[in-house]
Amino acid sequence: MTLEATSEIEQRGGVWRFPADQPLRLDSGGRIEGLEIAWASYGRLNADRSNAVLICHALTLDQHVAATHPVTGKPGWWTRLVGPGKPLDPARHFILCANVVGGCQGSTGPGSVNPATGRPWGLTFPVITIADMVRAQAMLVEAMGVETLLAVVGGSMGGMQVLQWAASYPERIFSAVCVAGAARHSAQNIAFHEVGRQAIMADPDWRGGDYALHGTRPEKGLAVARMAAHITYLSEMALQRKFGRELQRDGLSWGFDADFQVESYLRHQGASFVDRFDANSYLYITRAMDYFDLAAAHGGVLAEAFSGARDIRFCILSFTSDWLYPTPESRHIVRALNAAGARASFVEIESDKGHDAFLLDEPVMDAALAGFLDSVCTARGLK
Amino acid sequence: MTLEATSEIEQRGGVWRFPADQPLRLDSGGRIEGLEIAWASYGRLNADRSNAVLICHALTLDQHVAATHPVTGKPGWWTRLVGPGKPLDPARHFILCANVVGGCQGSTGPGSVNPATGRPWGLTFPVITIADMVRAQAMLVEAMGVETLLAVVGGSMGGMQVLQWAASYPERIFSAVCVAGAARHSAQNIAFHEVGRQAIMADPDWRGGDYALHGTRPEKGLAVARMAAHITYLSEMALQRKFGRELQRDGLSWGFDADFQVESYLRHQGASFVDRFDANSYLYITRAMDYFDLAAAHGGVLAEAFSGARDIRFCILSFTSDWLYPTPESRHIVRALNAAGARASFVEIESDKGHDAFLLDEPVMDAALAGFLDSVCTARGLK
Repeated sequence: MTLEATSEIEQRGGVWRFPADQPLRLDSGGRIEGLEIAWASYGRLNADRSNAVLICHALTLDQHVAATHPVTGKPGWWTRLVGPGKPLDPARHFILCANVVGGCQGSTGPGSVNPATGRPWGLTFPVITIADMVRAQAMLVEAMGVETLLAVVGGSMGGMQVLQWAASYPERIFSAVCVAGAARHSAQNIAFHEVGRQAIMADPDWRGGDYALHGTRPEKGLAVARMAAHITYLSEMALQRKFGRELQRDGLSWGFDADFQVESYLRHQGASFVDRFDANSYLYITRAMDYFDLAAAHGGVLAEAFSGARDIRFCILSFTSDWLYPTPESRHIVRALNAAGARASFVEIESDKGHDAFLLDEPVMDAALAGFLDSVCTARGLK
Repeated sequence: MTLEATSEIEQRGGVWRFPADQPLRLDSGGRIEGLEIAWASYGRLNADRSNAVLICHALTLDQHVAATHPVTGKPGWWTRLVGPGKPLDPARHFILCANVVGGCQGSTGPGSVNPATGRPWGLTFPVITIADMVRAQAMLVEAMGVETLLAVVGGSMGGMQVLQWAASYPERIFSAVCVAGAARHSAQNIAFHEVGRQAIMADPDWRGGDYALHGTRPEKGLAVARMAAHITYLSEMALQRKFGRELQRDGLSWGFDADFQVESYLRHQGASFVDRFDANSYLYITRAMDYFDLAAAHGGVLAEAFSGARDIRFCILSFTSDWLYPTPESRHIVRALNAAGARASFVEIESDKGHDAFLLDEPVMDAALAGFLDSVCTARGLK
């Protein structure tokens, strides 16, 4: 079941099922047997298997990077970066993205059935980490016959996975791109996630995590969690420019309907989110992010985490108005990479769009990524 | 029932009941009959009634400025400013604070009984505004026989009321102090409030606002609302310094207990808040803040709102790390005051404590307020 280098199909996808004797070993000490990883790919693996790029997705995104999403019907989330003529081009690269373990788009997660009990895992699912996500990706990549990745690329939580790849499997990646990421979750990051988790767990339809068994869904709690999180993805300026104090209709309602457009927008964000995301996955993935502190296993010295990474080419990008993973977090990463002797290029991009800028129209980001990936291809001897 | 200038009691308090023929007229067009306003005072009104200072409280605070809180048993919330030897000294000033209309510490609010029905108002309570709060305060001050206030002082939502006083009753105030305030709520401000309201209304124990009739309390929803709001009161730096990634106990729990101290702290903030605050009051007061836009009634020109205020001495303070009502909001106020020809002193105070700095140990704030209030007393001919 390895991927054929001569595949005629440029766009593929599916669920990779690992045999029971290849469990995913977890940081918690546990293991997941019968691991399933949902993946999507674009382009073909070349003859010497040197053109594979792994994209790591953010908290609520998934493997549908560049194709229409099967649930929402919306275009892929990073078509700016992936597609014909784009920095990652299926004509040139084999581009792979996998739903993280703990997710809800086909990979094993708390919504999956525990083979040992025949019932959904719910809260009996083990707490996973960013390193566990990366370990599962490494298993997938290996199973597909890819020894070395040309690049690992990700934004936000995807950027955390990229850094983890560089720490866990430096010999298996040629370059690494971390956009709007961080090497650890700050107190404020944890605080916002905790608000979201408490909102979900406060919803009586959550049922202690066993909502699947009860036929309920904690939609109100999950919507509130999304609303709180969504504010952190945008800059104050972006919200002000987009909505200001604009009203939904003429005059105030003198009630608690959505009077302001920003209220209506947030409510819509919450309501549409629950259609595509699972509440328990939200708990587990936010927990993984909160637990993330790449330096912790290295005596608190981030450079030590990168001690094996000095041959990797790094590209670190941040946005001026990102207050979730602000530029100082990226500078902290760059300093550690420099201290480790790695090659790191760093660009702080002027943008007023906040954290979500990595998903939006930011030509400077596109140009930076195109330039970096081009140079990486050249260095790797790819045309 | 006017306050005696010769009162022997330095600290007083109670509930002022207005007769039915003195209703509170509301911006919404409605009215509240049988208005009750809970108040507390410190010091005595002098013979010429020229030493009265009104303090306006913030969203979740109340009239207990400088005395032990009857519910929580904690000291007053602004003992830094009010007390013997403090910038506002009961030996020198008559210091008054009233619970806002819509509140839950004794003033008429959604938790009060509607005299017309004999049942708690709940969501039939009219939506109120900052101007309505100020109108009720003006009624109280007049009823107490105070024609002119030496100063109106407030932080956060209290600062909004101070600005509203200057717009609504400029001839009745001699000076005005607005700390960490704003002349309008931004899109981000509204967004965070909307998250809190949705959290409350998502709680089934809220019962459409009629929880009092059902003997329930939407404690989980209100706690989530408080948690989300509380993050906005602190700077990222303050959270990082106070908690960082410190754990509650040795090692991670690998579950959803509060692993990090910041989680435990936030949960405590939520849990203790529900003991002292009413969910419907939270809805109404946040709504009043969201509706606040002082310039709106003046063609969007803030200076016009202050056209009658050119004889008032203003003191505007902001904090560098306050991202809820950041310094540009204060500068916007100061520019408008300058344009209106009013005397405005402005200090941006270097602090990493965030919005809550106005309640915390900030000697520069204390000094600025002491200096300003001293100069005001001198100008008013008070020793």
